Parts: sequence; structure tokens; C-alpha cells
Amino acid sequence: MKGTLFFKNKPKILSTYTIVGPKEKSSTLGSFYDLALNDDKYGESTYEKAECKMLSTAISKCIKKSSLKESDISAIIAGDLLNQIISANFMARDFDVPFLGVYSACSTITESLILSSLLVDSGKMDNVISAAGSHFATAERQYRYPLELGAIRPPQAQWTATGAGAYLITNNAKNVPYISCATVGKVVDFGVTDANNMGAAMAPAACDTISNHFKNTGTNPSDYDLIITGDLGALGSRLLKHLLKKAGYDIEANHVDCGELIYNMAEGDFQGGSGAGCSTVVVGSYIYPKLKNGEIKRVLFSATGALLSTTSTQQGESIPSISHAIVIEI
Amino acid sequence: MKGTLFFKNKPKILSTYTIVGPKEKSSTLGSFYDLALNDDKYGESTYEKAECKMLSTAISKCIKKSSLKESDISAIIAGDLLNQIISANFMARDFDVPFLGVYSACSTITESLILSSLLVDSGKMDNVISAAGSHFATAERQYRYPLELGAIRPPQAQWTATGAGAYLITNNAKNVPYISCATVGKVVDFGVTDANNMGAAMAPAACDTISNHFKNTGTNPSDYDLIITGDLGALGSRLLKHLLKKAGYDIEANHVDCGELIYNMAEGDFQGGSGAGCSTVVVGSYIYPKLKNGEIKRVLFSATGALLSTTSTQQGESIPSISHAIVIEI
Repeated sequence: MKGTLFFKNKPKILSTYTIVGPKEKSSTLGSFYDLALNDDKYGESTYEKAECKMLSTAISKCIKKSSLKESDISAIIAGDLLNQIISANFMARDFDVPFLGVYSACSTITESLILSSLLVDSGKMDNVISAAGSHFATAERQYRYPLELGAIRPPQAQWTATGAGAYLITNNAKNVPYISCATVGKVVDFGVTDANNMGAAMAPAACDTISNHFKNTGTNPSDYDLIITGDLGALGSRLLKHLLKKAGYDIEANHVDCGELIYNMAEGDFQGGSGAGCSTVVVGSYIYPKLKNGEIKRVLFSATGALLSTTSTQQGESIPSISHAIVIEI
Repeated sequence: MKGTLFFKNKPKILSTYTIVGPKEKSSTLGSFYDLALNDDKYGESTYEKAECKMLSTAISKCIKKSSLKESDISAIIAGDLLNQIISANFMARDFDVPFLGVYSACSTITESLILSSLLVDSGKMDNVISAAGSHFATAERQYRYPLELGAIRPPQAQWTATGAGAYLITNNAKNVPYISCATVGKVVDFGVTDANNMGAAMAPAACDTISNHFKNTGTNPSDYDLIITGDLGALGSRLLKHLLKKAGYDIEANHVDCGELIYNMAEGDFQGGSGAGCSTVVVGSYIYPKLKNGEIKRVLFSATGALLSTTSTQQGESIPSISHAIVIEI
């Protein structure tokens, strides 16, 4: 049962709030987000400050949506992709609430949700916010090239989503989706060294976590209405299905990937979206309401993260990856 | 009681293991560490790889010291100061164990210990490793200047410790120190903009957490044999004592700071040590044994973190800070 946590009190997701940028607004799921910006600087002087403001707004609006007050919130658990997770750390200045910073690249939201569920399930805290976000412009210039360079993207690349989302976890709610269990992932490294091909780097980690989850919980792919991965993109998703088939699990019938869902793939986004905000906004805006209204009843959500840095890449290292999974039910 | 968690099962610290570099070896606490290196590259080709190896070695030796096996470990929770916490993420490749990455700058070890205690106290996991580390050379070149530049350090500066440590948290042990409660800190920003003066930036966060802790637990400074802060250094410690006195708490009699303890201050280390490894190795090697043998019985340990990045500093931002506190008793 290693790595799998069962939550006996079924921590509820009382509310979610999602914010995205202009590109996401004009794409497939544009009408589902709570707030879609026309200005990807969100009125700020830098993209980093915009990313921070998106996180902060998502959290305060999520609290408001739940009809709670900031003083009712026991803790905020959040992270992002920037060096020293500055978007999350600077966001936390805006709230008089205890804060725990996490880093798990694009699987940050499921790590946050696991720890929030643990705090609420233990009865030690009442209402905990999980949040994560990313911004195309801040990630691109931090991880790759200056935006002004107009560097050509190779076909295996993904597009970092501009988006932030917050989820409010509580024991005090009825008739809303809850988190029944979770599987904490291991770091897996298959030796991929192409920092533009994160889908290939992350697929083995997703396979490891999802197959461990099936084993530890005694479930099969058909026990879930949906199996959602974070942001493997088109290529990574194909690799995951292949790897899981070899491990004895066929997820072909009910797998979707947030990276594939978020953009109109014909637009030239190549493999699809990525970034800590990608699965956060897709699950928060598009999947959560379907669970809430009973359209689907049981979802396995395994966000995926590539744990590289520019320094590790420059030093010739491969890309270790991770995936943390949660089960959301109603 | 906001932010304070009480652990009813008293999660035990079964073992600790600490590794430091040559400067720490030749300083005040040199004889207390489990392993003190003569080579601050630890046989690796880069300082970053050395930092990762220190973390990995600390964890495997900590498991060995406890007479457990790697297969007995339920999870590892770790972090460091590098962009995308690569030391922790790459370390986790070495273990077939679920992993949670955290970032809280120099208060990483107390965040790790709080989350490990929560997992163990809930009965959901048996044995969880908390770890953190830092390296002077990697931090200096990431946050400040190339080492080759030989930049002059201003008198208010601290020296990032080269050190890594691991703590094994379990319910299954007797007659060892345990973690009775903890207070999760809030992000506090008093507007300090001097990235060389982190003691001043962090002191208000330490004051906030420690005074909240006293209030929430109904305790006073005299209820603790020691009140240990992470790495405020000499100036930051003076500021903390002043701020706490204004808040009604006098910690003059029993306060020590890991940043002040780690180096011979006459050596020209200015305000003392800092870095995620600093308090990790001081508490793990020097304080933990004193608790274990009953020399002291109750310690409040509040590690402190400055949540800046080079990007935030370049964009003119001030330095938000945080401090997470735990109580260790025997």
C-alpha cells in the first residue's frame, strides 16, 4: 500500500476558482473559466507580478465563492514554477493565513490537494486552500529563451499555460465532490535529456504512480469514469497508454490529458499545454462541475511534473519526473 | 489556535544524520556532525551534484542508523535552496520511496518535520524522512555573484552553510525525543529590500510565529529549556528579541540561534550562518543528542526563511519571510 493514503472523513472540495490568460480564453475550454483575462500582464508592470496576482485573486475569489471569510481559512498550500516559488510566496503576503510552500513542477496542484486533504481529514484544520499557477511568459524566459528572441519551438514541445486556480478543502460541506484517497508519487528518471520533450520524460512517472494506485487500491481503469493526467500532451499521453498497457492496464477508453484538452491542437501548440496552472484550471473549471452535477462520479487525477532546472540541464543531467494522484468522487 | 497543530501520538525522531563541509568542520560545532567533508565538492564534478549527494547520503545513513531498511520508509519530504529544488528532486531518484518536495527557504526543515509528523501522527504512514540541505558555493552563485569574482561581503551578510541533514520520524520508537506540536507560519513582509540583510527581513516572521505559538499553546518562554531560531544571525537575533519584548515575551534567558552557533564569529563570518542546511545540521547534531540524553527536555525550534529570488530582487520587491516552529520534547 506504499504511498497510498485513504481519507476516512472524505475531505470535500467546497469550491474552485480559475483564472486564465487570453490564449486560453480563445481556446477550447475558454467559456468554462471563472475569469479569462484579455491582458496577460493583468495590469501589472511585469509578468511575474501578473502571475502572483492571478494566484492571489484565484484564492480570494475561491474563498468568496464558498461563502467563507478569509478568517475561516486555516492554511494555504501553494506552489508554482518560478525560482523559489516567488508567485506563491509573494501571494501569501496578501493573506493573514498560515502558509506552506510546495514544489512539484506541474504536479504541484495534486501535491497541494493531498496535503490539504491530510490536514482536513486529521481534524487538525477546518478549511484549507490548495492553489497552483503558471504563466507562459515567466516560464518561457526562465526555462528557455528571452521572449523577444522569438525562438522556434520544436514539434515535441508543449506550451506553458497561463493560468491559476484555487480549491477550498473542508470537512464542512454536503453534496460536493470529495477526495477519497491519493497516491504520492516516486521520482522516476528514464534518462530523457531533451528539455523540450517533457511528455516523454513524465510518462514513466505517470505510469509508475497510476499502476501503483491501481494495485494499492485494488481498482482497475474501468472503475473510473475518467482518468485524467496533468500535462503529458499528445506524445506523452500516447507513451503513457503504451507503458500502462505493458503493465497490464488499458486506459484507452477513459483517459484524457489536461495538456491535450486546454488548446485547439490545430493552432500550432504542438503537443498541447503544460505548466502548474494547466491541470489546475482544466480540472477546476471543466471537470469539477461535471462531478458536482453528477455527470461523472469518480475521477482519477494524476498531475505530472518534470523536475528539471536550467542548471541541471546545463550540467548534462536527464529529467527526473513525478506524478501525484488523487481520486475525486461524488 | 490558528496554525498550531497538536500531535496526539507524539511522532518520534528516531534518528538524525548530518553532513557538513570543511568550513563547518573547522568551526565551533565541528566535532558534533556525523560526517564532515574535507572536499566541498564531495568527489563530484559540480557543487550542485555535491549538494545533491550530501542530501542523498544523509538520508541513507539516517535510515541505516535507525536500523530500518529503505523498504521500511513510507515517504521522504525534502527541499533545498536551489531553483526548482533540484538537490532534493535529484536526490529522490536514488530511493524507491514516495517523495514530496517542499520549498520554504531556510525554514524548509521545520516545514518538512511538520508534514512528516502529520503523516505519522495520522497513522497513514509509518516512517517518514524529513531532510534539507544547502551549499555555500551553489547558493552564492545562484543568489549573488560568481565565486570567481571574489565579491566583498557587507557586514550585515550571513554565510550560507554547506550542510545537509535527515531526520527519521516514526510512531514506533521509545525513549527518543518526539514532536508534540507545531505552529505553521504566515508570510510576513516588513519591507526590507537589502538581500544581504536577511536577518532583518526574517526577524518579524520569527516574532509572528513564536508569539502566535505562545498564545495558541498557552506557554511562555520559561516553559522551554531552549528557544532555537533557524538562522537569524547576530543582528536578526537582536531584532527578534527586541520585537518579542514589545509583544510581551522575554526570550533573552534561553534563546540561541543556529546561525550564531555554527561558526566562530571572530573568523569574519559577520552575522553568522544561514541556509536550509544551517539549522538542519545544528539541531540534528548538537541539540537532538542533548534532548535524547535528557540534558534538556523541551525545545521550541523555529527555523526562519527569506522568500526572495534574484528575479524578485531585480524587480525591486522587498523580502517576504516565514518561520515554522515545532516543539521537541523528551
